[in-house]
Amino acid sequence: MRDEGSVGLTDDVAVLKAHSGAQIITTDTLVEGRHFRVGDPWMSVGQKLVRVNVSDCLAKAAYPKACLFNLTWNTGGTEQNLVDLITGMKRDLDRYGISLIGGDTTSHAGPCVLSLTLIGVCARPEGPVRRSGAIPGSDIWVTGNIGDSCLGLLVEDETLPGAKTLQDRYLVPELADPVTVELISRFAEASMDISDGLIADAGHMARASNLMMEIDIGKVPVSEAAQRYLGNHLNTETRLRLCSGGDDYQVLLTCRAEDREAVSGFAETNSLKLTRIGRTRSGEGVQCHGPDGEVLKTLTPGWQHDMSQ
Amino acid sequence: MRDEGSVGLTDDVAVLKAHSGAQIITTDTLVEGRHFRVGDPWMSVGQKLVRVNVSDCLAKAAYPKACLFNLTWNTGGTEQNLVDLITGMKRDLDRYGISLIGGDTTSHAGPCVLSLTLIGVCARPEGPVRRSGAIPGSDIWVTGNIGDSCLGLLVEDETLPGAKTLQDRYLVPELADPVTVELISRFAEASMDISDGLIADAGHMARASNLMMEIDIGKVPVSEAAQRYLGNHLNTETRLRLCSGGDDYQVLLTCRAEDREAVSGFAETNSLKLTRIGRTRSGEGVQCHGPDGEVLKTLTPGWQHDMSQ
Repeated sequence: MRDEGSVGLTDDVAVLKAHSGAQIITTDTLVEGRHFRVGDPWMSVGQKLVRVNVSDCLAKAAYPKACLFNLTWNTGGTEQNLVDLITGMKRDLDRYGISLIGGDTTSHAGPCVLSLTLIGVCARPEGPVRRSGAIPGSDIWVTGNIGDSCLGLLVEDETLPGAKTLQDRYLVPELADPVTVELISRFAEASMDISDGLIADAGHMARASNLMMEIDIGKVPVSEAAQRYLGNHLNTETRLRLCSGGDDYQVLLTCRAEDREAVSGFAETNSLKLTRIGRTRSGEGVQCHGPDGEVLKTLTPGWQHDMSQ
Repeated sequence: MRDEGSVGLTDDVAVLKAHSGAQIITTDTLVEGRHFRVGDPWMSVGQKLVRVNVSDCLAKAAYPKACLFNLTWNTGGTEQNLVDLITGMKRDLDRYGISLIGGDTTSHAGPCVLSLTLIGVCARPEGPVRRSGAIPGSDIWVTGNIGDSCLGLLVEDETLPGAKTLQDRYLVPELADPVTVELISRFAEASMDISDGLIADAGHMARASNLMMEIDIGKVPVSEAAQRYLGNHLNTETRLRLCSGGDDYQVLLTCRAEDREAVSGFAETNSLKLTRIGRTRSGEGVQCHGPDGEVLKTLTPGWQHDMSQ
């Protein structure tokens, strides 16, 4: 996971490679006990650290290239824990072709704190695709499945159907295939990754783009594992909860309605799971619709405010 | 401290501005209770976080430009503490013309963990000045003064002469003036900042450049405050300890002997405190010389190994 830019590992700084395309940078911190559980396998923590950052990069139509790693390790951690963490990181840095070019290692008696800072190169010469570019009358699409990670966190009986798969998805989130960068670059008006939950992040996109996002809850894709696990409990209320969970690390994007067939065709050609879940229109906030088209009450624009009371 | 690249503060990623020169990136983490004391003023902690990173950048002949900030705050910290931290950071980001373009904020019940990742643009088109470029027969120079920070940490009676100044230097290290970038860019074969202590870092440079660094301990610059504080105690042994202290954040560089007058002239013209403290020669490790030219025993190449026994 090193390359010629990695003098930062032996000198004091790393050199950023020059690229013809616009470069972006993003960073995410994982704190033990907050963003992963005490006792989670360290190999999966290493993979998760890489993936939450790669997710940001892909969703902005950029290919991840190089990273810096800031580790504050717990002084009581074992050497094997550390080896596992680094092994997990290396596995996914290699998977996505990312060079480790620098970082800093410290320790303390508290919870481990892991930050990854990721540099990517945009597929579009004009730069990343924003969350603010959506216009009314467009289609809303989402990659992959929604809700596996939040279900995986809630699993108590891992012998139930689908439970183990869901737990694994919580530990190591599945990302959209990197070919999604090309999809976004070619078709998306607005794009972002889903980390706070589909509805919350749709709300962020609606606010940034100054419009309303209408989502048909029944169309939101739910994995086979989640369907097996939930069985008869997979009703509208449960779907709403899956859409509010977070840690999906899939991509939410809007594309013009006249590109609908081209978008579907691209996904099919590239074996990309992509689902049309709604549409944008004038207004504000997120409006979720049930199976009969009814507006679901909890998801009016005031929803977040009401929840906090 | 924001600029047009700072979409990362409202979107998911920041755009790295294109520059004609080579760009470098460096990161340093400060942990509460390790790199600063519990109870240190938060404003000074914010300044220190910026400066330890700026120091790396300047020493490599690069101008600092943009940064990302990862904060893991202690949940028990007060809002005023946080305001002070950000105020201190902003003060020095403004001082050095650095834009804050992104970051991540988290919290936990443990010690605060602060990481800054700094991007700089090299003065030389070919990139940063390495620690590995020194050749035998050159002059060794150092900017500013050595030992203030380690003395400041040891001060117990702050009513003693110079004590308050030294304490301040520990809290907020003085950096070399940014014009040092031009000096290094024009004259230095090798350059690095002094964070582990002058002797230890000279050892790093010696190893990277595959030669010996000879240092005349009596020539190592000591501040007026340190001289007043130490009084009669400023002997060779004390000077050696100042050179082993660390946290100086000054620049150690080597320049060709035939450039000696030009280097001195540049420093004088630019009111830059710059002191010639020794020379490079074939061999390995660091050799410190006392006032009568004698080799000081503790500083033979085996010194670090002996200390660890």
